[in-house]
Amino acid sequence: MNFRTKLEAAWERSGSLLCVGLDPDPAQMAIADVAAFNIAIVEATADLVCAFKPNVAFYEALGPERGYEALRRILAAMPPHVIKLADAKRGDVEHTARAYVRAFYDDLGFDAVTVSPYLGHDSVAPWLERPEKGAFVLCRTSNPGAGDLQDLAVQTEGGARPLYEVVAGRVRAWDRHGNAGLVVGATYPEEMRRVRALCPGMPFLAPGVGAQQGSLAATVSAGLDARGAGLLVNASRGGTYASKGADFAQAARAAAQALRDEINAVRDTVAARGAP
Amino acid sequence: MNFRTKLEAAWERSGSLLCVGLDPDPAQMAIADVAAFNIAIVEATADLVCAFKPNVAFYEALGPERGYEALRRILAAMPPHVIKLADAKRGDVEHTARAYVRAFYDDLGFDAVTVSPYLGHDSVAPWLERPEKGAFVLCRTSNPGAGDLQDLAVQTEGGARPLYEVVAGRVRAWDRHGNAGLVVGATYPEEMRRVRALCPGMPFLAPGVGAQQGSLAATVSAGLDARGAGLLVNASRGGTYASKGADFAQAARAAAQALRDEINAVRDTVAARGAP
Repeated sequence: MNFRTKLEAAWERSGSLLCVGLDPDPAQMAIADVAAFNIAIVEATADLVCAFKPNVAFYEALGPERGYEALRRILAAMPPHVIKLADAKRGDVEHTARAYVRAFYDDLGFDAVTVSPYLGHDSVAPWLERPEKGAFVLCRTSNPGAGDLQDLAVQTEGGARPLYEVVAGRVRAWDRHGNAGLVVGATYPEEMRRVRALCPGMPFLAPGVGAQQGSLAATVSAGLDARGAGLLVNASRGGTYASKGADFAQAARAAAQALRDEINAVRDTVAARGAP
Repeated sequence: MNFRTKLEAAWERSGSLLCVGLDPDPAQMAIADVAAFNIAIVEATADLVCAFKPNVAFYEALGPERGYEALRRILAAMPPHVIKLADAKRGDVEHTARAYVRAFYDDLGFDAVTVSPYLGHDSVAPWLERPEKGAFVLCRTSNPGAGDLQDLAVQTEGGARPLYEVVAGRVRAWDRHGNAGLVVGATYPEEMRRVRALCPGMPFLAPGVGAQQGSLAATVSAGLDARGAGLLVNASRGGTYASKGADFAQAARAAAQALRDEINAVRDTVAARGAP
């Protein structure tokens, strides 16, 4: 099954654009066992999400051998219809990118990854050659320093454009199998709107909701595609650490449910005022 | 000891600007055991190099648990005075960058890493906060697609400049502890010259010699700092896979020695015509 089909099935089946980030922070976890903690979160929220997104940094920080062993067990607990998205932000020359592809697509079995565009086409191509896998390329991120490079004014034939718009255009040109996506932070609704205009049919991963305090309604309105989908709205710390008590998994479920419903209310509003 | 002091001691003690990349490729290795193979290379070349640079992609591709376990053993075989440089090209938001810092600096014990600038200042700052560690930021890389983003013409107060020059300027501004470096590919001597002019005192990691066929003499001439150092000239596949036979470690030593001598001959030439 190609990635786009799988993603659309995940949106459809869950009725949700929510992606839950699984970023283990030993200081915030109710129980010490990283795998057990995240498996409990997965089991409590799997019917509410289209995707789970472990950021591999937090597994490498545990000591990579131990961290990846835990990650593998967490991945095994995810239902097959939910997108397994590795937030890895890898980006290296072609020969090396192929080694990362083996690690993330083949060995760990992820459906999709986040990748960096800084090294250009041949660094991204190995991730996109596999139609059954998806690659979300960093475009406009949600952090305070995002603009240092991404907002630089680049001279183009059509006049000056911010770098992130140039990146969006490049990724669209590189996307031969319909399996490319973009990372567009939830903290910048105006940028989201501009990127959506450039790439009307592409899925966007939108991190920054919750802990990073994105403006949810504005972001979702700006990012929805013409069919009222097109987004993976990610919440990590805000949801998974909703409680430090024994009820942590139920609390994460409640937080995920509230966020899914909030996103869907925006979708309904847009649909009601929208379709011509 | 701060990173700059350690790097200068490594240059001085080895009399070499050579960095040997340790990128295990099971198809090319003379023996199947990744740790044993690379430990043999390390032992055969340690007196000829200022640094060893494992690219972690090739360890993750082995299955990350197994790969990092092997990497840890390889790191343990490196003499303390040689720089241990993780080619990881990580780049993520501050909170996440701190997790990668724990993994690479603290848990694995690297002296330095390569990092991506695309997410801006707060993604690079955690790597630079530790004066005893060094971060080499991707600037102008050596791959065919490097120019897709890095050569884009950016509007600045002083006129249009390629993105990689803007990145060089930013990294210089972010470098409060003298522990920042840049990655400048060995395939682009003219770009190397321009970046050296912008950052006269900064160490540059120059990959692309050997397998990527950089023009060694032109690159080294363009990249040397005023004291005839300032470079870590990396060779990976070209050196470590010089022989597929039982003599692989001796062959790697011979290749490293030839390359070190070639680099030093360029240094001598530049010094002879140079100093006023």
